[in-house]
This record gives sequence, structure tokens and C-alpha cells, in this order.
Amino acid sequence: VAPVEGADGAADQIADAVTRGDRAAIARLISLVERGAAEGAGAVARLHGRTGRAWTLGVTGAPGGGKSTLTGALVAALRARGETVGVLAVDPSSPFSGGAILGDRVRMQDHSTDEGVFIRSMASRGHLGGLALAAPEAVRVLDAAGMEWVVVETVGVGQAEVDIARHADTTLVVVNPGWGDAIQAAKAGLLEIADVFVVNKADRPGADDAAGDLEAMLDLGAGASGWRPPVVRTVALDGTGVGDLLAAVDRHRAWLDESGERDQRRRRRLGDEVRAIVAERLAGRAGALCTGEEFEALLDEVAAGRIDPWTAAGRILAN
Amino acid sequence: VAPVEGADGAADQIADAVTRGDRAAIARLISLVERGAAEGAGAVARLHGRTGRAWTLGVTGAPGGGKSTLTGALVAALRARGETVGVLAVDPSSPFSGGAILGDRVRMQDHSTDEGVFIRSMASRGHLGGLALAAPEAVRVLDAAGMEWVVVETVGVGQAEVDIARHADTTLVVVNPGWGDAIQAAKAGLLEIADVFVVNKADRPGADDAAGDLEAMLDLGAGASGWRPPVVRTVALDGTGVGDLLAAVDRHRAWLDESGERDQRRRRRLGDEVRAIVAERLAGRAGALCTGEEFEALLDEVAAGRIDPWTAAGRILAN
Repeated sequence: VAPVEGADGAADQIADAVTRGDRAAIARLISLVERGAAEGAGAVARLHGRTGRAWTLGVTGAPGGGKSTLTGALVAALRARGETVGVLAVDPSSPFSGGAILGDRVRMQDHSTDEGVFIRSMASRGHLGGLALAAPEAVRVLDAAGMEWVVVETVGVGQAEVDIARHADTTLVVVNPGWGDAIQAAKAGLLEIADVFVVNKADRPGADDAAGDLEAMLDLGAGASGWRPPVVRTVALDGTGVGDLLAAVDRHRAWLDESGERDQRRRRRLGDEVRAIVAERLAGRAGALCTGEEFEALLDEVAAGRIDPWTAAGRILAN
Repeated sequence: VAPVEGADGAADQIADAVTRGDRAAIARLISLVERGAAEGAGAVARLHGRTGRAWTLGVTGAPGGGKSTLTGALVAALRARGETVGVLAVDPSSPFSGGAILGDRVRMQDHSTDEGVFIRSMASRGHLGGLALAAPEAVRVLDAAGMEWVVVETVGVGQAEVDIARHADTTLVVVNPGWGDAIQAAKAGLLEIADVFVVNKADRPGADDAAGDLEAMLDLGAGASGWRPPVVRTVALDGTGVGDLLAAVDRHRAWLDESGERDQRRRRRLGDEVRAIVAERLAGRAGALCTGEEFEALLDEVAAGRIDPWTAAGRILAN
């Protein structure tokens, strides 16, 4: 999907409305972005120059770890400081979890009448990779709308979700006591992306073990970047430890700013985004190449077992 | 990953060994395919002409529905008829479920010393879309190795899993009593892909309701293709109903053969596969395009907010 060139009055209009903080316009533009609509891309392109002020917070971890409750508690803590927050709950992988997202969101209805909060779920509409492109666009919309924080919470921990959550200024990895040993987090690649670890449900038995395991693994691999991820314990349901968590996020933010790492990270993220758009647009050409009489004739050969699919693909690309 | 041309003695050798049913060669080639190795693609290309005899069975449905146990029961029933079976358990979406797959596989160890059965798990190695290409290749390996049936069982029901499971001659959709109403299956797009519905754990309360909901939804949408998916009740744990299920699969197989729909479906599947390979190879070019001094200079512009990522991608593609 390329931005619409030319007839772009509508894109200008919606971009301006978003910049004014118009909630209906924000919701509409995120919907357009989620659908991959050209109008959405055009409007978001206009917003790009007005972004970069929001601090983005990625929240990821195994399902059932209490990520939504924790996000709700973080929103409450940020609002208590008078700061505005946009929340994106992203589910790129499962057509089954629409219900789960809505259920989780109910817990956040405390904030539903608060003008300083904007909460939105995004699910993949049958197109893998779609949300990897749409999520940063939606973040940009909330950033341009003036939200001081944008929390991107992923529902699961598929590769797509982890990729989305890591594309934040500060990434929180949520684990639970008894969630299994820290090795599972390591296996999933979560150790490498965590800026702050959260042991949530820390009132349950095993919180010390979970925190200890994480610290031990950090002892092994720490030091390279100059930031050692702190391990913070929370009970998101009653707010215990959420102040400490926010303090850890603030410290990470200050470190990123002072070390210059913040600009490096944002630049890397934008590079990844451009690369993903190029890949998506190239892949989109496959559909056009794989149609028509010539393609059907080639497919006859494949179906008859005379040539294999890789050879067929090679011939299509050679033309 | 393109097949290796030229130095392809190793590919010939492994392809021949697979055709002889050499189990070590089968395992090795599927591992190569899973990793996307060029050697694997070359060997599988050689096998293409020797495939098409196996009947492929896709098994999908929500996690916890008993798909693995059902697969194990189907394998036992097919072996009792003297037919050989390959099983692929595919988990494209979650880096967390390695443990779950292994746990499920333990239940199938009954068959581990049976030469007529080959069981294999495949997980995505951090590359989305990878298994969508690798799964049909692995099916081809088992087909060429002489397996009369290839069961492709997906662990979850992400879009990628559903796409993989539907690419079978006969697709089973597994639901449970109390799994929720059939609307959830409809929402996930499972109604459209089911050739046979299985209400597993049918000894639990609610089996009648689940079956009734499915029949009611089939009443609404049935008839277009000439095949109405039967709804079969099973208790996979003790084998109840598995004979009925196999009979339903046999009927579907006979219908596909007689109607000519079987060849249509296989041709469509090969077309999808060629399209996916073309898309993957085009997307692979993105990495090469997004590197070097020119790219970095463009990225400076994006990072400074002067141009947006879509415009940058457009410039890269225009060159």
C-alpha cells in the first residue's frame, strides 16, 4: 500500500485532526492503518514529521502473565503523574483471540472516560506480517496526536508479537513465578530484547526463584550494552511494585537519552520499518507475476510432476 | 533459497535414500527443509516427480482440543489397516511451544518403533512464513518416501497454522464440547476449510450442543461445493468414534476422486506454493536493496523527520 498521491485532501484533513488530538480521527486513522488502506498510509506519511516526542513502551511475555492488568496499572500510574498515554494491544497471530483481547480491555474501562488515555486493540486480518507494518504506523498516529507515552502490549509471544514489542524505546518482558525457569524466556529470545524484567504476580510462591533465575542469566550475558536490565517485582492487580517499575522505566529512559543510544535505536527501528515496507511491496508483486496464461501453463507442468515448484518460481522470476 | 545447481551429488544421494524409505535420510532432509537450506530444496525438487501418491490429512483446531491424541488414534487405526503414515506436527507461530510439542509427542511413542510410521515436529526458527514454505516440502519428502498417508497437525490456530492445515486433501477441524459456540470456529475461518468436523472429547457434557451448532451453521452455508462436511464425535483418548472418523475421511477421499475435485485442489495448492516461493524470493531482495551508503543517507532523512518511511521505500523501489 503506497500513500495516495494527488487527491489527498482527505489525508490532509485527517492528519490535521489527529494532530489536534481529535479522538474520532485517531480511531479512524488507526482503523485505516490496520486495514492497510492507502488513505491511511498517506495521512500517516504526513504525520511523520510531527512525531518523535512520545516514549514508547513495549510489553511482552507469555500469555496469562498479566500483561493487560500491568498495562492498566502503568496507565493509572502515568495518569497520576499527569502524563497522557496511548495503548495499543496487538494480536498478530491468532484469529481466536479477539474475544480474549476484548475481555482484557474490559479491565481497562477505568480509563475509558479519561481524555488523557487512548486505548485500542489491533488484530491481524488474515494477513501475516500486516501488523508488523501497521503497528509502527499506529504508534506514529498516537505520537502525533500528542500522547506522551505509547504502550504497545502484545497478547501472545509469537515471533511477530516479539518483533513488534521490541520495537519500542523501552521493552518490558513480563514473567510469572512458576512460569517455568528463565530458560524458557531465553529460548524465546526474550532475554535479548528486555530492557526491564517484570516478575508479575510476585505474591505467589516462586517469585524469588524466578527473579533469581533471571539475575543469574543476566550475570552470564550482561555488560555488553552498558545497561543491565533490572528485575522488578509487581502485583499488578493491586498495584504493588508498579511505582518501582515506573522508576525503572524512567531510569532506562534517562540512560538511553544520556548515552545517545536512544537516537541509535530509533534510527535502527526506522531502518527496519523501511526494509519491511520494501519487502512487503516486493512480495506484493508476486501476485501479479503469478497469474495469466503463461502461469497456468507452467502450473500444468508442475501438476504433472515434470517440474518442481522451485524451478517454476525461478522461471517466473527470470522473466 | 533456491535449489543448488551444479554440485548436486549430495542432493541426488539424499533424494535417492529418501525414495528407498531410509529413515535417517528422511529425518535429515526434513531438517534441511526446516532450516531452509539450499541443499534441502535441491533434493526436494528431485523428489517432486515421485510424489502425489500419499493422501494428506490436515488436522487443526483450538489448542487443547486433543488434536495430538486424535492424530495418535488415527495413526493406530490406519496402521491396523496396514497403511503407512507420516505425521508432521507444525508450530509456526510460537517460540514458547517447543515444550508443548515434545509433551504431545510423548503420547505417540506407541508408534516409535513402528517402521510404518514416521513422526516429526517442525517449529518456526524465528522466521515467519518460513514454515508455510517448508511444510509442503516436508509433506513431499514423506510422500516420496512412500508413506500412504501424511497427517499435518498444527499446534495452534494462528493464521499461518490454518493456512498450513488447509493445504491438505482432507482437512479435519477439531472442536470440543464447551469449547464455545460454533461462531468462534466461523470467526476463525475454520468453517470454510473443514472437510470433516470432529467433536472430540464427546463424552463431556455439551457434545450434542456443539454438534448441533455445527450442523446449524452447515445448514446455512452448505451445498455450494457438493460436499457437506460430516460432524463426527470422538473420544480420542479411548478410541471411541475413530473408526467412524476414518470412514468419513474415506468417503471424502472417494468423493474428491470421483468429482475430479482432488486434482483441482492439488493444482490450486501447487499454485499457492509457487506464488509463496516467488513472494519469498522477491522479499529476500529487500535486504540487498536496503543496505549501503545510499540507504544510510536516505535513513538520515527519515530519522530527521524530513521524509517518511513509505516515501523512502518508494524511492528505493524506484531505483
